[in-house]
Amino acid sequence: MPLLHPDRLFPADPATRAIAKRLFAPIENLPIVSPHGHTDAGWFQENRRFADPAALLIRPDHYVFRMLYSQGVRLEQLGVGGGDTADPRKAWRLFAENYFLFRGTPTRLWLDYVFETLFGQTERLQAANADRYYDAIEERLASPEFLPRALFERFRIEVLATTNSPLESLDAHKALRTSGWSGRIIPTFRPDPVVDPDFEGFRKNIAQLGENTHEDTSAWKGYLAALHAERARFRELGCTATDHGHPTAATADLSQGEASHLFARILAGQGSAKEHELFRAQMLTEMAKMSLDDGLVMQLHPGSVRNHNRALFEKHGRDMGADIPAPTDYVHALQPLLNRVGNEPRLTLILFTLDESAYSRELAPLAGHYPCLRLGPPWWFFDSPEGMLRFRETVTETAGFYNTVGFNDDTRAFLSIPARHDVARRVDCAYLAKLVAEHRLEEEEAHQVAHDLAYGLARQAYRL
Amino acid sequence: MPLLHPDRLFPADPATRAIAKRLFAPIENLPIVSPHGHTDAGWFQENRRFADPAALLIRPDHYVFRMLYSQGVRLEQLGVGGGDTADPRKAWRLFAENYFLFRGTPTRLWLDYVFETLFGQTERLQAANADRYYDAIEERLASPEFLPRALFERFRIEVLATTNSPLESLDAHKALRTSGWSGRIIPTFRPDPVVDPDFEGFRKNIAQLGENTHEDTSAWKGYLAALHAERARFRELGCTATDHGHPTAATADLSQGEASHLFARILAGQGSAKEHELFRAQMLTEMAKMSLDDGLVMQLHPGSVRNHNRALFEKHGRDMGADIPAPTDYVHALQPLLNRVGNEPRLTLILFTLDESAYSRELAPLAGHYPCLRLGPPWWFFDSPEGMLRFRETVTETAGFYNTVGFNDDTRAFLSIPARHDVARRVDCAYLAKLVAEHRLEEEEAHQVAHDLAYGLARQAYRL
Amino acid sequence: MPLLHPDRLFPADPATRAIAKRLFAPIENLPIVSPHGHTDAGWFQENRRFADPAALLIRPDHYVFRMLYSQGVRLEQLGVGGGDTADPRKAWRLFAENYFLFRGTPTRLWLDYVFETLFGQTERLQAANADRYYDAIEERLASPEFLPRALFERFRIEVLATTNSPLESLDAHKALRTSGWSGRIIPTFRPDPVVDPDFEGFRKNIAQLGENTHEDTSAWKGYLAALHAERARFRELGCTATDHGHPTAATADLSQGEASHLFARILAGQGSAKEHELFRAQMLTEMAKMSLDDGLVMQLHPGSVRNHNRALFEKHGRDMGADIPAPTDYVHALQPLLNRVGNEPRLTLILFTLDESAYSRELAPLAGHYPCLRLGPPWWFFDSPEGMLRFRETVTETAGFYNTVGFNDDTRAFLSIPARHDVARRVDCAYLAKLVAEHRLEEEEAHQVAHDLAYGLARQAYRL
Repeated sequence: MPLLHPDRLFPADPATRAIAKRLFAPIENLPIVSPHGHTDAGWFQENRRFADPAALLIRPDHYVFRMLYSQGVRLEQLGVGGGDTADPRKAWRLFAENYFLFRGTPTRLWLDYVFETLFGQTERLQAANADRYYDAIEERLASPEFLPRALFERFRIEVLATTNSPLESLDAHKALRTSGWSGRIIPTFRPDPVVDPDFEGFRKNIAQLGENTHEDTSAWKGYLAALHAERARFRELGCTATDHGHPTAATADLSQGEASHLFARILAGQGSAKEHELFRAQMLTEMAKMSLDDGLVMQLHPGSVRNHNRALFEKHGRDMGADIPAPTDYVHALQPLLNRVGNEPRLTLILFTLDESAYSRELAPLAGHYPCLRLGPPWWFFDSPEGMLRFRETVTETAGFYNTVGFNDDTRAFLSIPARHDVARRVDCAYLAKLVAEHRLEEEEAHQVAHDLAYGLARQAYRL
Repeated sequence: MPLLHPDRLFPADPATRAIAKRLFAPIENLPIVSPHGHTDAGWFQENRRFADPAALLIRPDHYVFRMLYSQGVRLEQLGVGGGDTADPRKAWRLFAENYFLFRGTPTRLWLDYVFETLFGQTERLQAANADRYYDAIEERLASPEFLPRALFERFRIEVLATTNSPLESLDAHKALRTSGWSGRIIPTFRPDPVVDPDFEGFRKNIAQLGENTHEDTSAWKGYLAALHAERARFRELGCTATDHGHPTAATADLSQGEASHLFARILAGQGSAKEHELFRAQMLTEMAKMSLDDGLVMQLHPGSVRNHNRALFEKHGRDMGADIPAPTDYVHALQPLLNRVGNEPRLTLILFTLDESAYSRELAPLAGHYPCLRLGPPWWFFDSPEGMLRFRETVTETAGFYNTVGFNDDTRAFLSIPARHDVARRVDCAYLAKLVAEHRLEEEEAHQVAHDLAYGLARQAYRL
Repeated sequence: MPLLHPDRLFPADPATRAIAKRLFAPIENLPIVSPHGHTDAGWFQENRRFADPAALLIRPDHYVFRMLYSQGVRLEQLGVGGGDTADPRKAWRLFAENYFLFRGTPTRLWLDYVFETLFGQTERLQAANADRYYDAIEERLASPEFLPRALFERFRIEVLATTNSPLESLDAHKALRTSGWSGRIIPTFRPDPVVDPDFEGFRKNIAQLGENTHEDTSAWKGYLAALHAERARFRELGCTATDHGHPTAATADLSQGEASHLFARILAGQGSAKEHELFRAQMLTEMAKMSLDDGLVMQLHPGSVRNHNRALFEKHGRDMGADIPAPTDYVHALQPLLNRVGNEPRLTLILFTLDESAYSRELAPLAGHYPCLRLGPPWWFFDSPEGMLRFRETVTETAGFYNTVGFNDDTRAFLSIPARHDVARRVDCAYLAKLVAEHRLEEEEAHQVAHDLAYGLARQAYRL
């Protein structure tokens, strides 16, 4: 029995399901536009085979190991965080035994898609077939069709954006552009390490930024010039967007004198927590002003309390599945930036949230008014069938479809990219089918919207 | 092909849809009770023809122009805000070109209803038929059947409440009562201009209030007496309710000495932002106490951050589509008022919200306990199919149906009134049909509830 | 016509309903595990007949009397709160007249279940049949099959947990264990009266605790020892869990010196409101540490603003239906405790909420990471079909099914226990049926999950 049903994620009512299938058929195989994610350009530059199944499917996927950890599996047993010394086959068996934990989660949908479409599996993963799975995956990974570039092409990826610090050399991106390979892989400018005073090594990063750009980053003016220069460097490599992972959505609109003074205090190590927050806030507005100049689209991803689990952070570092969402204000937080540049249709600022209560209360009303605002797709924990449905149900009536920007797969699990787009396209078709079945939208219109959500809006919003 | 399907907004499942249709049939044509809205009594008093299509359907409708604005259309192109100088036909064409933006929104449902039922259109509005639409609407507006009183009767409006400042003369209301015309149009007492110290011209308004009532409104006692007098004046013209548009739901229960002192400080221009808030809070309790005397039903509409877009406000003034909801506390905020008068069944205080997270957490538990409390229908951005469903789904299990008050169309777009009640009646029937189909309610009971939600509860709650 | 339809609460779509029925059939009659509730062990120890219908079904049920109160019925008319002097038949008639108020509420589902399955009624309760109902209930209550122990067995209750103060003698529990009756009834350790400085009689309670345990509870060390001793006493009587009803989820991790000093200040009556909160916060961490020693499972029930209605509280005391939920933070609040013991799989801390916005934002992400955390079922106002569906829909995709703990009936209305489990089992099957119908889960897996949700998870999580 196959793992995937062709009608998965479509509404059960037969008439509605039929509509969903008609909407999905023409968009199922559209090229993938992936404007936001965390893959590594080096994979495609080097084009080496992926390592073992555990390294490929367990270790890089925080959805997978956080669930196992929540049920008492230790990260060391999985080879996650640090040494990576666990025997990959043992880790895989542990994962297989516990695969039932993922029932009802999107991880299960993504993995089954990968297991069936890439590795030909037709039996649900469990303790009994763990080794068979492992061997089958191992075997395929060794074949040329499973090299990164081959998969990129097989996945019909039209463009893939990575996420990069201004301090990165982007050598892989550069090399790819002269490699003769046709795959389009572009960087995204993520300045958190040099605009967030709480980022590890902030002051060292600022100094490094100065060296890299030959600007005096010990002063406000040189610091801004350095950021400008780095943005230009990214743009030359195809970058069309910036990304900002702040703890809150706070923005500020200080005078340049105030900002300069604040920067000096912070660089001198005299900034309070509140001043650090103010600085991040000001930098969002500075980034918006630069975007008006250079056309880079902004993305704001606020609201995560990072490294909530102190012991885990001290032992294993960042990204151990212990980032937890918190309530996030947008209405007051964004006002300074919006009052500065919010009426500029030339600016695009894409907002994300981990606080779903803000969808209908703040985000849709804001995006349904300000010309610069668009709403990013459901993010992180909400990148799931129910999460996507809630997004459409709470956002569409106020902001419409055309203040949203299509789908982001947002993953470092390269193999899951098609699975994630498949889920998003299906759920959007399910939502649209309901509107059609309830005579809130004509089917012909729904076809256009489905195409836009799957393909057109991402290209347009991210200027791809 | 018609724009409206007879089964629109009913669930797709055939058996459930059949129930919804049976529930809807007897209530579809019930008279409209409209206890809260923003039409102008002068329209009916003067009974002059409505102006052009743009003036009728675009300019007064913030849902329409905020969406267009969010996609880069300038308000000037629509003739919105200030000069109203844009060529109405050009504005209409721009609207028609962008009509696809409203897919999935309630605005689309309301407008299609108006286009088909009033103007006989059967093709979706788009660039290609913009002029045809325009001419058809123009032609009908010139006919006697489209004069305000004729439409009022055609719409089967049993009673229509307007919203009025205590400083208004209410001449049109007075004239209507002696005009011989049978239409029942009543004012609502909205004292924001004279109870909110942050309202434009507050101190001037207080002085005006004194002149109008021959009371000394420079002192607390005279101020209260003046408000009492104005309430009486409104009641003589049929008014049964007050309405309060505060930024928060804060209430207070100061001693009369404290209140008097606070009033003096504020009138002297010495009040802090916090004191302004405290004054508004106290005035809600004062209004509640007056309601115990004179029987006026209170409505509280908190939670909107008004004029969020500073540049737009400075250029075009209020109500430009830039009011954005914010998180709203009810539990602590209402306690002072409720501890003062909350156990009085003679008082009715109808609560609204723009923060849907409060429905199940605060509003339903409060309304399901306090004898004075009732829940107003989903408001503003939530006056929509999904918004209405969420309201019923999150409120009913704790507060039941009988602590709610039926529907408010809440509009200044007169032509959309039947469309809005049509949507509300259909969505309520869809919800009830689901309860019946899942054997949570008998169909016979659902018929009674449907009638109450469409008609009876509004009359009862608003004492009409 | 019966009051209960065999397909109640199942989705209307025929194919999905068929799946739900197949899932429900094997779990419908599983034994009831009731690990959290408010029944009285004395009922079963004494095994006396229940009093009249009003005393049985109206007075102990805050869902019933709060709704009646919200519509203007006075508590005195129902015999609720204090004197209980109202004529029970008159109270019953008032209830019957107003039974329509419960349309769409879970109370209606529970009561109809009781009316039909226990008292053989087949006509909906209303004014006309009030006396017939009353007499029928009276008659049955007098029969031996309606004695508490007989009902316990008829209900197939495998284990029933009560909720008890450390100051209680637990005599009924003791007597039951030596009575020869096979019913398993266990206490739950609820230390609020001796860990919450705002609890009525706190200092007296601490003194009493000292007397009971022969510990010096005027000092921190003796106080902790006394709590330890009481926990041991509860465990000897079968207790497996503690329960904590704090206003917030705040936790703290003070040094023992700081904690000792804080305790002294509070006992001396010198604690501020903030210090009272800090003390409660610290005591949650102390309880967690004791749980690591003695294995008691912790339950945290935060977020209720108790006794919101001052006049009612002063007249009738606690639990008069006037406890109102408020926004509740978990992410920051729980961090001190979690940083202390959160990575211990030996600890189980079950979290509940009255703030549904925390489900997807905070609770599921926390429970999907920390080994010690599990999510309790929807609580209080959300113990309802829509509330349960929202819980599954917002929690499952991030935390899965296996970080939840099955159902709590949480009631003092003993007769409603089977009705409540019936609703929970049906709603879970409805949710699972949707997953199966949309090919998100295999039906075979859904059978296992349904069994776990109805039975296995409660036993496992509560260590029963």
